[in-house]
Amino acid sequence: MSGDILKMIYDVAQSRKSGDPAQSYVAKLFSKGEDTILKKIGEEAAETIIAHKTADRRQIVYETADLWFHSIVALAHKDIPVGEVLEELERRYGKTGLRAEE
Amino acid sequence: MSGDILKMIYDVAQSRKSGDPAQSYVAKLFSKGEDTILKKIGEEAAETIIAHKTADRRQIVYETADLWFHSIVALAHKDIPVGEVLEELERRYGKTGLRAEE
Amino acid sequence: MSGDILKMIYDVAQSRKSGDPAQSYVAKLFSKGEDTILKKIGEEAAETIIAHKTADRRQIVYETADLWFHSIVALAHKDIPVGEVLEELERRYGKTGLRAEE
Amino acid sequence: MSGDILKMIYDVAQSRKSGDPAQSYVAKLFSKGEDTILKKIGEEAAETIIAHKTADRRQIVYETADLWFHSIVALAHKDIPVGEVLEELERRYGKTGLRAEE
Repeated sequence: MSGDILKMIYDVAQSRKSGDPAQSYVAKLFSKGEDTILKKIGEEAAETIIAHKTADRRQIVYETADLWFHSIVALAHKDIPVGEVLEELERRYGKTGLRAEE
Repeated sequence: MSGDILKMIYDVAQSRKSGDPAQSYVAKLFSKGEDTILKKIGEEAAETIIAHKTADRRQIVYETADLWFHSIVALAHKDIPVGEVLEELERRYGKTGLRAEE
Repeated sequence: MSGDILKMIYDVAQSRKSGDPAQSYVAKLFSKGEDTILKKIGEEAAETIIAHKTADRRQIVYETADLWFHSIVALAHKDIPVGEVLEELERRYGKTGLRAEE
Repeated sequence: MSGDILKMIYDVAQSRKSGDPAQSYVAKLFSKGEDTILKKIGEEAAETIIAHKTADRRQIVYETADLWFHSIVALAHKDIPVGEVLEELERRYGKTGLRAEE
C-alpha cells in the first residue's frame, strides 16, 4: 500500500509537465531539461553515500527519499511508468523473496 | 500494493545478514561491508544516468531497479526500515499529490 | 610544466582556508565543511558523464576541469598534497609509459 | 613538471586504442566502449568520496589517482587532449593564483 506513493509521485510529476516553472519545482526541472534531472540523480546518490558514512539516520532517510524522487521524475520525463521498475523488482525478488542466489 | 515489493526486498535483505556469502549476493555484499554497498549506489546511479542518455528504455528500467535495490540493501545494513523512506515521501508528496510548490 | 597548475591550485586552496567565505568560493567550500566538498565531486562526476554522452567537447573539458578542481580542494581540506596523487600516477604509469598490462 | 604524467597517460592511452584487450586494461576499456569508461568515472568518484569519509589517507590518494586516470581515458576516447583541461584550469586559476572570487 505504502508503495503507491511512488506511483502517486509519478502521476503528479507527469501532470507537472505543463505546469508553471515559477510555481512548481518539478515543472522547473522539466523546463531545464533532462540533463538537469540526471545531474540531480548523481548529486543525490553522492549525498546518500555521504549520509551513510556520516551515520546520520535522519539524513539517510531524507537523501534516499530525494534519490528515489528524482529517479521517478527522470522516469516521468521519459514516460516510463514507475510500475515498470516495480515489476522488474517483483520479477527478480518477488513472491518467494530473494532468489537463493541473491 | 506494488510498493510492497520494496518492503519485501528489505525483509529478505535483513534475513540474508546471517546468510552464506557463497550462496547469496546480498550476504556477500554484507560480508564485504558498508563501503562495498555504498560503492554500488554510486555505480548504479552512474549507470542510470548513462542509460537515460543512451535512451535505452529497457536499460533505464533495469538500472533504476538496481539503484533502488542497492539503496534498500544499504538501509537494511543500517536497520532503517524502507517504510521510513516511503513515509518521508508520503509526508512530502502524499494525499493531495505534490505540494503546489513541488 | 602545465601540470604545475594542479599544484598551484592546491597551494592557493590551502591559502584560502583562512579566507573570507563571502569573498572566495574555496573559502566558502571550506567553511561549509567536507561533506559539501565531497558532494561537489559527485556532482561534477555526473556532469562529466553527461557531457561525454551529450558529446559536447567544450562541456567535456569544462566539467573535467571542475571535477579535478574539486578533487584538489578535497585533498587540500585533508592536507594531502596533490603531488602525492601525481606520484601515485607516476609510480603506476610513468617512465616507460603504461605498464604492458594497463 | 610533475603534471607531465597526465599527458603521458593520455599519450599511452591513445596508443592502446589499437592494443590487444587481452593484454592491456586500457585496450579492454576501449573495446568495451564509452559507457564502460564513463561508468568507471562514476565508480571512482564514489570511491573517492568514501575514502575521504573513511579518512584513509592512502586510500584517498589511490582513489583520486583512479578517478583522474579514468577521466583521462575518457578524454582519449574522444580525442580531447588532456592539455585542454589543464589550459582551462590555467585560464581560470593560473598565474596570479585563484582569482579573488574563487
